[in-house]
Amino acid sequence: MNVDYEQEMQALRVALQQRLEQLLPVGNQQDRVGEAMREGTLAAGKRIRPLLLLLTAKDLGCDPDKPGLLDLACAVEMIHAASLMLDDIPCMDNAMQRRGMPTIHRQYGESVAILAAIGLLSRAFGVVAEAQSLPHAFKTQVVTELSTAVGMQGLVQGQYRDLVEGRQARSAEAILLTNDLKTSRLFDATLQMAAIVADASVHARQRLRCFAQDLGLVFQLMDDLSDGVSGTGKDINQDSGKSTLVEMLGVDAVHQRLCEHLRSADEHLAIACNQGQSTRRFMRVWFDKQKTMFGLDWSLPEC
Amino acid sequence: MNVDYEQEMQALRVALQQRLEQLLPVGNQQDRVGEAMREGTLAAGKRIRPLLLLLTAKDLGCDPDKPGLLDLACAVEMIHAASLMLDDIPCMDNAMQRRGMPTIHRQYGESVAILAAIGLLSRAFGVVAEAQSLPHAFKTQVVTELSTAVGMQGLVQGQYRDLVEGRQARSAEAILLTNDLKTSRLFDATLQMAAIVADASVHARQRLRCFAQDLGLVFQLMDDLSDGVSGTGKDINQDSGKSTLVEMLGVDAVHQRLCEHLRSADEHLAIACNQGQSTRRFMRVWFDKQKTMFGLDWSLPEC
Repeated sequence: MNVDYEQEMQALRVALQQRLEQLLPVGNQQDRVGEAMREGTLAAGKRIRPLLLLLTAKDLGCDPDKPGLLDLACAVEMIHAASLMLDDIPCMDNAMQRRGMPTIHRQYGESVAILAAIGLLSRAFGVVAEAQSLPHAFKTQVVTELSTAVGMQGLVQGQYRDLVEGRQARSAEAILLTNDLKTSRLFDATLQMAAIVADASVHARQRLRCFAQDLGLVFQLMDDLSDGVSGTGKDINQDSGKSTLVEMLGVDAVHQRLCEHLRSADEHLAIACNQGQSTRRFMRVWFDKQKTMFGLDWSLPEC
Repeated sequence: MNVDYEQEMQALRVALQQRLEQLLPVGNQQDRVGEAMREGTLAAGKRIRPLLLLLTAKDLGCDPDKPGLLDLACAVEMIHAASLMLDDIPCMDNAMQRRGMPTIHRQYGESVAILAAIGLLSRAFGVVAEAQSLPHAFKTQVVTELSTAVGMQGLVQGQYRDLVEGRQARSAEAILLTNDLKTSRLFDATLQMAAIVADASVHARQRLRCFAQDLGLVFQLMDDLSDGVSGTGKDINQDSGKSTLVEMLGVDAVHQRLCEHLRSADEHLAIACNQGQSTRRFMRVWFDKQKTMFGLDWSLPEC
């Protein structure tokens, strides 16, 4: 069963990679912006968001081979890649390394990095609009979800809060809100996209919102805990000097919160999509790997 | 009749301003990104693109009060405002002044200017997706048009070419292509949006593409001719050192090209939308004002 699972996941990863390659074709040699768009998106990433979209859609009863579904997954990955590029530029986090490579602005220059991020964002909306065989009404709902996740109620606002508030004392609540905006909102949009395509109930969609919120917090807490640990492919001690929950509450308390959100996430997911076997297994395997990699300790209930 | 015309245009401008205000609501006091989004969009602009959209839709037989049409016009203006903010930042054109005011990054800082531009772009797609009373199929077509106009086949590519090639010798053809990408493509998307809502024929849409191409070139040539002239609200001599058509061909030849493209634009417009009275009058009045302001000389055939 583990072999089957790994094969299934590998097949999804290959399908995503191939589709991303098609959606971001090689341009001419002078096309540095196009190169940066490809580099930032096609370089080895964890593909958590697109995989979540595909697996959740499956758990909600949708055929995972449904045409168009893969395109939506690619659109989410493009938006994620664009947000990483922008977070890294000199006037934001000024990061040196990402996914184990020099950041895009270090390879291509700042102006190209910014233009590539804009190119990816607009391409993502175009990919949604052109996704095959999906009803137009679904596609406009998806555009709304992505627009909200990127804009003032999502990534843009989260990045701004992080920049302004990261260097000053702030409350745990302020940190949690920033984390929610920076991470949970795009997870939410991702899962709502699966729900839209699967024509899921209002109840399921509400539970997926709760799942996304927990999941985003788990990722941010894990990110905070792993800052200072090598092997993440990102800068070490990038958060040094920022007021984070780890700094405020200590490692143990953050660890405990992480476990609580992880359990809560699992429960919401199980209720949202009929036990959610595929997605929950993916989450379990993924977090088990992280646990080992960062020497963290938690346990998840068995499905 | 002139009084009626001015009243009609003023009413459209007021409607646009009010709708933009609603679509970009005031946030809390700390919300600098939201402020920058409003400042960059609501500050006195010429509103050429949204007015063109509304007038062309009318000339194509569409009720100008059709719900949703105004929202599409606002979406185009948001994208235009975002592109100006980004063009102005230090790592792009490093402009000091825009629309008679200090540029957004000078008022709010570079990171806020970039986030505000991203916020506006994603809001624009959301506004299209939520536009009232338009069929979903129309809205997805509009998203495709805007995505193309912003991305690698439009503004992003144009800005990149301008940055890289502006400082070195280039052919007249290279300049024309850059101008087309930077200016004509968003005009094209604007006019196609009018055509989509009006359910115009393929033939009309093709003519509108030609009109957009001419119009974009006219704007760029006018921009080149007026560089060095005060009263534009932008930096003077911003193009100094850039290889432009004025530098290459001289003022007279550029002036002649401008007149040719203006006549050609007018012809395409007349054929595209049944004499296109509203749009053509708007164009004539607008270019007459420019002519006086910059001491330029051209004439347009009477409708």
